[in-house]
Amino acid sequence: MDTAADITAMRRAITLASRGLGSTSPNPVVGCVILDAAGTPVGEGFHQRAGGPHAEIHALRAAGGRARGGTAYVTLEPCNHTGRTGPCAQALVEAGVSRVVYAVGDPDPQATGGAQTLRAAGVETVGGLLAEEAEAGNAAWLTSVRLGRPYVLWKYAATLDGRIAAADATSRWITSPEARADVHRLRAEADAVIVGSGTARTDDPQLGVRGVEGARQPLRVVVDTTATAVRPGARVLDGTAPTLIAVARDAGADHLPARSVLRLPRSATGRGLDIQALLGALHARGVRSVLLEGGPVLAGAFVAAGTVDKVVGYLAPVLLGAGPAALADAGISTISRALRLDVTETVRIGPDLRITAVPAPARKGN
Amino acid sequence: MDTAADITAMRRAITLASRGLGSTSPNPVVGCVILDAAGTPVGEGFHQRAGGPHAEIHALRAAGGRARGGTAYVTLEPCNHTGRTGPCAQALVEAGVSRVVYAVGDPDPQATGGAQTLRAAGVETVGGLLAEEAEAGNAAWLTSVRLGRPYVLWKYAATLDGRIAAADATSRWITSPEARADVHRLRAEADAVIVGSGTARTDDPQLGVRGVEGARQPLRVVVDTTATAVRPGARVLDGTAPTLIAVARDAGADHLPARSVLRLPRSATGRGLDIQALLGALHARGVRSVLLEGGPVLAGAFVAAGTVDKVVGYLAPVLLGAGPAALADAGISTISRALRLDVTETVRIGPDLRITAVPAPARKGN
Repeated sequence: MDTAADITAMRRAITLASRGLGSTSPNPVVGCVILDAAGTPVGEGFHQRAGGPHAEIHALRAAGGRARGGTAYVTLEPCNHTGRTGPCAQALVEAGVSRVVYAVGDPDPQATGGAQTLRAAGVETVGGLLAEEAEAGNAAWLTSVRLGRPYVLWKYAATLDGRIAAADATSRWITSPEARADVHRLRAEADAVIVGSGTARTDDPQLGVRGVEGARQPLRVVVDTTATAVRPGARVLDGTAPTLIAVARDAGADHLPARSVLRLPRSATGRGLDIQALLGALHARGVRSVLLEGGPVLAGAFVAAGTVDKVVGYLAPVLLGAGPAALADAGISTISRALRLDVTETVRIGPDLRITAVPAPARKGN
Repeated sequence: MDTAADITAMRRAITLASRGLGSTSPNPVVGCVILDAAGTPVGEGFHQRAGGPHAEIHALRAAGGRARGGTAYVTLEPCNHTGRTGPCAQALVEAGVSRVVYAVGDPDPQATGGAQTLRAAGVETVGGLLAEEAEAGNAAWLTSVRLGRPYVLWKYAATLDGRIAAADATSRWITSPEARADVHRLRAEADAVIVGSGTARTDDPQLGVRGVEGARQPLRVVVDTTATAVRPGARVLDGTAPTLIAVARDAGADHLPARSVLRLPRSATGRGLDIQALLGALHARGVRSVLLEGGPVLAGAFVAAGTVDKVVGYLAPVLLGAGPAALADAGISTISRALRLDVTETVRIGPDLRITAVPAPARKGN
């Protein structure tokens, strides 16, 4: 049975884990709390960056000898493999921990088996405590392991009537400075930021993270099928972070830096590139989460490909009555084929609203 | 100085007033609470319907002799005119009330002067307590008195990407049963419900209130400029409530019941009818509040005319990527001319969101 102390310790571990968001990729975020035999917290830690110590190692170091006979709470099943830092399951056994409680089982075939190793060594081991909360915190990494492609968060900013720009294409600024600052937080949590050729052409965006302390700059990706949108001197080609320009195999891209060109097959169904191939190529480069920033055509292609895992919409209390919509052709022609979502959060960001939603579990018509 | 007792009593009066919403037109909603000389509540009441007693009269009847030396709290300045029910200011004087506290001054030139009458009779009289809250409850009536036209609430239902239907025009159902039930509450609070010819043609709506206990059926108005959308046998012509079909002066409307035809000038600026003339004609018929239910073209005309006082959007967590937008041409071509609003409320209605917003006080660019 889970006691109140178990829940408190695990919730703390989940909070600790979230501190690693944006810096642990391609690893998951993980938090760990250790209580001594009397139930007193004696160590805690979280995974800070790939190649650095795992959460359990940080916590064990803090606890020292007081870990003996105690309980370790970990948000993810302790790993069993000897990677860059040695298997955590073995470290917990060696420290003399007598009980391990973890939230989510490790779906990574290379790392799983930690619970088995612990039990074989006589450590009482239980999984599943606050699994849902811990999963939510690790959604990007878990999705990428399970599906073999990066987790995709589509972000858009629109008026109440769904426009991303006015009829004359002006769009500065529909949303508030607060909403725009919030987008930089999303960028900081993502491994890569993706935009389409329309956005590259219209806005010449730099796509970097600004105003987020300690942020790692994400990989910048422009889907520019015909290699005509990104020109030499484009802001996205500045030296602040790596950049990939995804172009069709047959596109002439001699004007682009060779190291930035990613050649991909065209979509079988229509315009643009094969979205699955794009995500596969990014995954192969260690990208576990992407922030899709639009525009509407590229977002439509992602929705059509079934590769949007979360939607964050910034809605400005503004009416335009004309101008492009936030989402273009997603291959949906009738209401019964609509993509149905569940709203998970609604908050005010300055004068705007931020609405977060995730695809609803299989419903009729989807 | 306003004591806690003053505020409590006035807030109760505001709550009472709201019970009259939808049934007092063309009168305002008004609530009244009477405390005796010792501060004990001895009577309360609200204006229930035009032609019936005012709130003060209900409250004085309940209080009887205990009103003498007490305080009356009224959400609106007590009236001074002898209408169907006699002036309330005089009734308060006769009951021996020694103090009157009201929230909002009466802007109606026919009824104002009550405070003066009370003071002349030696009753201590103060206005302005919780004026903002009381104004909000009476927004429709106050707007109609100040502007000489009905208060306009524009309601729409759309997907997260701003679509009111799919590419093939299917739209049943974008929003949930809960959201649709909520719309019937809005209808019940309005004196009239307005739709355009597109909605009439596509949906053949009945526009009645269903599922709201004790609701008065609003006047049904279809803007059918060329008199081609509403055909004999249309559901909006059933006998459940009066109906007006607003048509251009030159439209052939012999197929419509003569008593239902409202002839109006065409808009000077473009398609459709003159919105100000439409609102003027409705105001002349005693309509103080209208629920504008769309579609997008008519809503655009109202926005262009500057005659939208409140927006209620039901947003379904659904993505379509194609289909008509909630708002069509409102005469806004560039971002600096956008209609800026302030969000006043966001609530979940079943799986959907209901966003309420009002035009922002004059900002740059509006």
